[in-house]
Amino acid sequence: MIPRKLRMGMIGGGPGSFIGAIHRIAAIMDGEIELVCGAFSSDAEKSKQTGVSLYLPPGRVYSSYPEMIRGEAALAENERMDFVSIVTPNHLHFEPAKLALESGFHVVLDKPVTFNSAEAKELKVIREKSGKLFCLTHTYTGYPMVKEARQQVLSGTFGRIRKVYVEYPQGWLSASLENSGNKQAGWRTDPLKSGVAGAIGDIGTHAFNLAEYVSGLKVKMICADINAVVKGRKLDDDGAALLKFEQGASGVLMATQVAAGEENNIKIRVYGEKGGIEWKQDDANTLLVKWQDKPTECWKAGAGYLGSFAKHNCRTPAGHPEGYLEAFANHYRNFAGCVKAKMNGDTPGEEWLDFPGIEDGVRGMLFIEKAIESGKSDMKWISLDE
Amino acid sequence: MIPRKLRMGMIGGGPGSFIGAIHRIAAIMDGEIELVCGAFSSDAEKSKQTGVSLYLPPGRVYSSYPEMIRGEAALAENERMDFVSIVTPNHLHFEPAKLALESGFHVVLDKPVTFNSAEAKELKVIREKSGKLFCLTHTYTGYPMVKEARQQVLSGTFGRIRKVYVEYPQGWLSASLENSGNKQAGWRTDPLKSGVAGAIGDIGTHAFNLAEYVSGLKVKMICADINAVVKGRKLDDDGAALLKFEQGASGVLMATQVAAGEENNIKIRVYGEKGGIEWKQDDANTLLVKWQDKPTECWKAGAGYLGSFAKHNCRTPAGHPEGYLEAFANHYRNFAGCVKAKMNGDTPGEEWLDFPGIEDGVRGMLFIEKAIESGKSDMKWISLDE
Amino acid sequence: MIPRKLRMGMIGGGPGSFIGAIHRIAAIMDGEIELVCGAFSSDAEKSKQTGVSLYLPPGRVYSSYPEMIRGEAALAENERMDFVSIVTPNHLHFEPAKLALESGFHVVLDKPVTFNSAEAKELKVIREKSGKLFCLTHTYTGYPMVKEARQQVLSGTFGRIRKVYVEYPQGWLSASLENSGNKQAGWRTDPLKSGVAGAIGDIGTHAFNLAEYVSGLKVKMICADINAVVKGRKLDDDGAALLKFEQGASGVLMATQVAAGEENNIKIRVYGEKGGIEWKQDDANTLLVKWQDKPTECWKAGAGYLGSFAKHNCRTPAGHPEGYLEAFANHYRNFAGCVKAKMNGDTPGEEWLDFPGIEDGVRGMLFIEKAIESGKSDMKWISLDE
Amino acid sequence: MIPRKLRMGMIGGGPGSFIGAIHRIAAIMDGEIELVCGAFSSDAEKSKQTGVSLYLPPGRVYSSYPEMIRGEAALAENERMDFVSIVTPNHLHFEPAKLALESGFHVVLDKPVTFNSAEAKELKVIREKSGKLFCLTHTYTGYPMVKEARQQVLSGTFGRIRKVYVEYPQGWLSASLENSGNKQAGWRTDPLKSGVAGAIGDIGTHAFNLAEYVSGLKVKMICADINAVVKGRKLDDDGAALLKFEQGASGVLMATQVAAGEENNIKIRVYGEKGGIEWKQDDANTLLVKWQDKPTECWKAGAGYLGSFAKHNCRTPAGHPEGYLEAFANHYRNFAGCVKAKMNGDTPGEEWLDFPGIEDGVRGMLFIEKAIESGKSDMKWISLDE
Repeated sequence: MIPRKLRMGMIGGGPGSFIGAIHRIAAIMDGEIELVCGAFSSDAEKSKQTGVSLYLPPGRVYSSYPEMIRGEAALAENERMDFVSIVTPNHLHFEPAKLALESGFHVVLDKPVTFNSAEAKELKVIREKSGKLFCLTHTYTGYPMVKEARQQVLSGTFGRIRKVYVEYPQGWLSASLENSGNKQAGWRTDPLKSGVAGAIGDIGTHAFNLAEYVSGLKVKMICADINAVVKGRKLDDDGAALLKFEQGASGVLMATQVAAGEENNIKIRVYGEKGGIEWKQDDANTLLVKWQDKPTECWKAGAGYLGSFAKHNCRTPAGHPEGYLEAFANHYRNFAGCVKAKMNGDTPGEEWLDFPGIEDGVRGMLFIEKAIESGKSDMKWISLDE
Repeated sequence: MIPRKLRMGMIGGGPGSFIGAIHRIAAIMDGEIELVCGAFSSDAEKSKQTGVSLYLPPGRVYSSYPEMIRGEAALAENERMDFVSIVTPNHLHFEPAKLALESGFHVVLDKPVTFNSAEAKELKVIREKSGKLFCLTHTYTGYPMVKEARQQVLSGTFGRIRKVYVEYPQGWLSASLENSGNKQAGWRTDPLKSGVAGAIGDIGTHAFNLAEYVSGLKVKMICADINAVVKGRKLDDDGAALLKFEQGASGVLMATQVAAGEENNIKIRVYGEKGGIEWKQDDANTLLVKWQDKPTECWKAGAGYLGSFAKHNCRTPAGHPEGYLEAFANHYRNFAGCVKAKMNGDTPGEEWLDFPGIEDGVRGMLFIEKAIESGKSDMKWISLDE
Repeated sequence: MIPRKLRMGMIGGGPGSFIGAIHRIAAIMDGEIELVCGAFSSDAEKSKQTGVSLYLPPGRVYSSYPEMIRGEAALAENERMDFVSIVTPNHLHFEPAKLALESGFHVVLDKPVTFNSAEAKELKVIREKSGKLFCLTHTYTGYPMVKEARQQVLSGTFGRIRKVYVEYPQGWLSASLENSGNKQAGWRTDPLKSGVAGAIGDIGTHAFNLAEYVSGLKVKMICADINAVVKGRKLDDDGAALLKFEQGASGVLMATQVAAGEENNIKIRVYGEKGGIEWKQDDANTLLVKWQDKPTECWKAGAGYLGSFAKHNCRTPAGHPEGYLEAFANHYRNFAGCVKAKMNGDTPGEEWLDFPGIEDGVRGMLFIEKAIESGKSDMKWISLDE
Repeated sequence: MIPRKLRMGMIGGGPGSFIGAIHRIAAIMDGEIELVCGAFSSDAEKSKQTGVSLYLPPGRVYSSYPEMIRGEAALAENERMDFVSIVTPNHLHFEPAKLALESGFHVVLDKPVTFNSAEAKELKVIREKSGKLFCLTHTYTGYPMVKEARQQVLSGTFGRIRKVYVEYPQGWLSASLENSGNKQAGWRTDPLKSGVAGAIGDIGTHAFNLAEYVSGLKVKMICADINAVVKGRKLDDDGAALLKFEQGASGVLMATQVAAGEENNIKIRVYGEKGGIEWKQDDANTLLVKWQDKPTECWKAGAGYLGSFAKHNCRTPAGHPEGYLEAFANHYRNFAGCVKAKMNGDTPGEEWLDFPGIEDGVRGMLFIEKAIESGKSDMKWISLDE
């Protein structure tokens, strides 16, 4: 047993970052992880400032990620970081992840996993070779009621799955924010930083991942309509796709960043022969369970009647809502539990192992590239087979 | 001024009919229409029984629609029906509508307008020649908050329209009801009675009509995925389509009858550059108006701040909910108002004229046929130009 | 069997009336009742105008209610009205109801039943002597899901009832509308027309009636806080009361007309040992059924799994919402069914008999007077025993 | 500037504690506080175990709170804790808080502040004398949308406040849990540990505090109905009260632990002359703002249009829900900010100062004692003047 918190280093997350602060809260909330070092910006001064604001000792704040990884690797085992959390824009995912894994560090990486599909596949090989643990932060599968949904669906209670509807409507890119200095909008609409996709990569992958996770089914074919709605935008800010899943199910995926007035209400519905489920982030602690011949049931996070996966991922009793940060923290907590188990030579339970990994990343990149390809094609269906 | 109720005859709506009773309530609720005669079934005895249960004088209950139309036409002007309401299955729409129009009667017709597109176009010509009024009962556009949505969208308050999401999920055909004697399921899944489409014709047309009505935009191209999910079913019971609208908008339409656990929660969302609207039947008296930079607003039926179209179609003060029957009744009331205006030589206001007509029927049949065609095609986009 | 619609006469409901039009829609909607005569206003000219607008024959439009009752009584049995619907302000309830009953007509009467408790008790005696049927239109107990709530509570499924919360918040009297010519506000705030109470009589009685109906328990004691919030108002526009029910249950009643921004969201919650129910008009087609150790269930109007009382009072399938007018119409339909049964010498089923009557009226007047008395008292609890 | 995290010690929160773990997550989440020591149980072995599970150095885990306070006080300034968080049952609040304050430590204390009113008043004097900061964790006023509600109400936007409805329905004590070994139920229903009140003290104080916080008005008089519903229970498990506020407002408070099926949906509504607000924990990221003549608005946590207090207390963008733990964390973060400001000789902004303190505690104890007194009294109104 390791009687200590796990030590985390962070790459990215300096001034102007949104997701860096989220990762830090999520990581430390449960008292199992501490932030011990960081390379927060490629600008050494900014990295330093961030380190100060986070109360890190100056010696553990680095000017670049290679410096950090090498520096930490050189520290004594009882001091150096155990894993690294990478929260940079997409084009800066692969290299630091590769270096970290090859240097013996476990990795938490923000989605989408890499800049393109080739990198994702390569990273998969690297990770396997390294034997290190890898977590991809598809936040929404960290929600307890999403886990409950999956557990119910996989249990067969609804019969064979027939339909999957998933959507992620946002409105924040309705206007050309990238031209008014918004850093978040800037890199997401820049093909050099974001990759071949905008909205499809940024939120479409979340929707896609959620759909495959909850249904337990892989998408086989897609037919996508991809649009760059705001004038002058080089990447898509809107898309929708018809989906064919394995085992005969079909579905629809909608992802847009120009639905003016929408926030982040990602939502999924899955239907089998006898009933189905509905979950949305706007009411994240509720899972609607629908039946063809019985009243709809409202399953609530924190309740005693939940399945093992949901229960494992709740902190508060029913009615005291947990949110986005706790969903995020669940991935960190489960990842940390598995890292510790590995260090201790233990086998973690299936509830601990249930966090997104490199396979989700490879699937996500495939989805991104095929969706964009489909958007440009006159052919109706495009295969998602790898 | 005609100081009397309008006189309605009904074709169909005998024993086992669902929609016939709905039409009757909707027609008479506002005290502007009375049911005076009917040919309720092709079975003379059943027609007679229905007539008795509706307190009709035996002489005004007919054994067939031709008999009724001829019989009524032969009555004195101050006695005979003013219009006919046709509530039979799809394959029995065209002929009675044709005969009624050609015999000088106004017509209310249940959707979809006819058995196929050719009939719809012919009926359009017949109606024009007849000079009679025609109402197609696409129920959902009768809701006051749907009318408010349209009025706000058309006013330009949201800027140019970019996205339209419309869905109609049902679950009632999740199992093979048609094989257990359910009359409603029976004809809807029978190609000889329903036409080329099942779910797409039954509820997809409602969704399509709602989308074009609220957005004020015509669909130009569709790409559809059409499925017969339940084994042995000859017609589709599920479908989804990507949509391209005129003026550059795009959208998604979902219609299914196998989403087990769903009832009738038809829902529409329309987004422009600055905000948008959301309406769903499950909360029919609320229109959500969303803005990119302001709080979402909940506009309520019956409120004093509504626009002219919504106000014209409300009976009760805000907070006293009106429902499906009142939405249906709005079409009848507006239709009746226009019939009376015509009789009196008046010009009705635009709020009265706002009920679905033969054009909606022609569009709907085009949608049905093109959606089914697209479902079978490998080509991605199929034009909806007439 | 009486093979005809019942014939209704109306007292009140002339120009400026709100509730008169509601009663007329509710009465005729189901095709079981027709309006045949009326004394719509004490102003003969206004009564006549209303008659014309309702397409009544001039000879059946009367200048006063005594004239109408006598006139109708003098008609042949196969022509004269069967019952009268009285929709005047409170101070004009007792006399026409008395005369109608004593003249052999069944009566539908708007709530509260009379101007004061003494009249209510007298009317009860008159009704008994007359042997005529009497319906008091407490609208909300006409909703199918309210009936379902009562049926579940009375079945004992939740164990002994412990708590009842009922509330009726409105905002429409937040400002001094009565001083700006609003007819509805005018009589409701006038002690000469409304009686000893304002809000408590107008909507508090609805809440009280709903509480006793759903819980199946009588209130034994109340402790009320009664306020006239808007300056210069002579009657209460706001109140709240602690309640003690028989069998040891307790509760809270809130009724206000100065909750600015509220519409008509009357709501009730009842809890027993194992679970309870929640219903509110804003989501009238849903009954929430809560359990201490199971997920909350959403029972929906129109569903096949409902109890006999709810089913008897639904017109449309689940998901096609019914509203306030249908709830109102349920009282008329059930009343009419019982009148017909009586005429035919039949015994109506318990679902038909389930409409509010003179006993509800007597209870309501007792509540009004005791609540107002409690509001002025320094004693905590005041008995509601008759 | 203090370039370090604040150091927290904890009293209570050992095995079986619910609220201890909540406090720890809330305290550390934002990276401004670290747990450095604890006296987690009066059982030395249990305290030690908890210390191990929290990765504390053995030397900082104490067997009793006096030992801890003395031990920490003896440490060097750059090592010893800055403040103590006390999470014991009610009867163990006063002594440790007193000792901590008198020993020079700031204090965070779980509610209700003390065992009785006398202790609360004494603690107020002690705190003043000590000059130390004090935070009472009334969780719900930590929610950003509750702060937004207060800011809007105090701004006068709704006019003078007239009505306040607050409620906290729970169901978890519907059965006699205290007799089946539930530790939480055990001490809460034990007069020796909980004080004169059960539900009124446990959740009634939350409701009371929320009402005074959001309305900005003090309660002047109460009239309470207090019940011990479950057989054999010595303390109340249910209560309701009529309230009179200063400036003429009135209201209702409901708090129960026997509403079987309810979780923790604390809810408040406040109405002024022109409109009002509604907030409930079940939809914690939304504030409904209602207007008499305009659509209801849904203000959302994280949105750019919020006031300064809400904004200061949000971590995530609109649509990414924050929950109970973040509300709790807001109190810790604001308290910590003020402690740091004090250490640095700075004056904190009003948003930082906005956390509940000893005054809220004194008010709460007064409410508890007067509510229980009122419950036993035949007099209607009991004054809450101190």
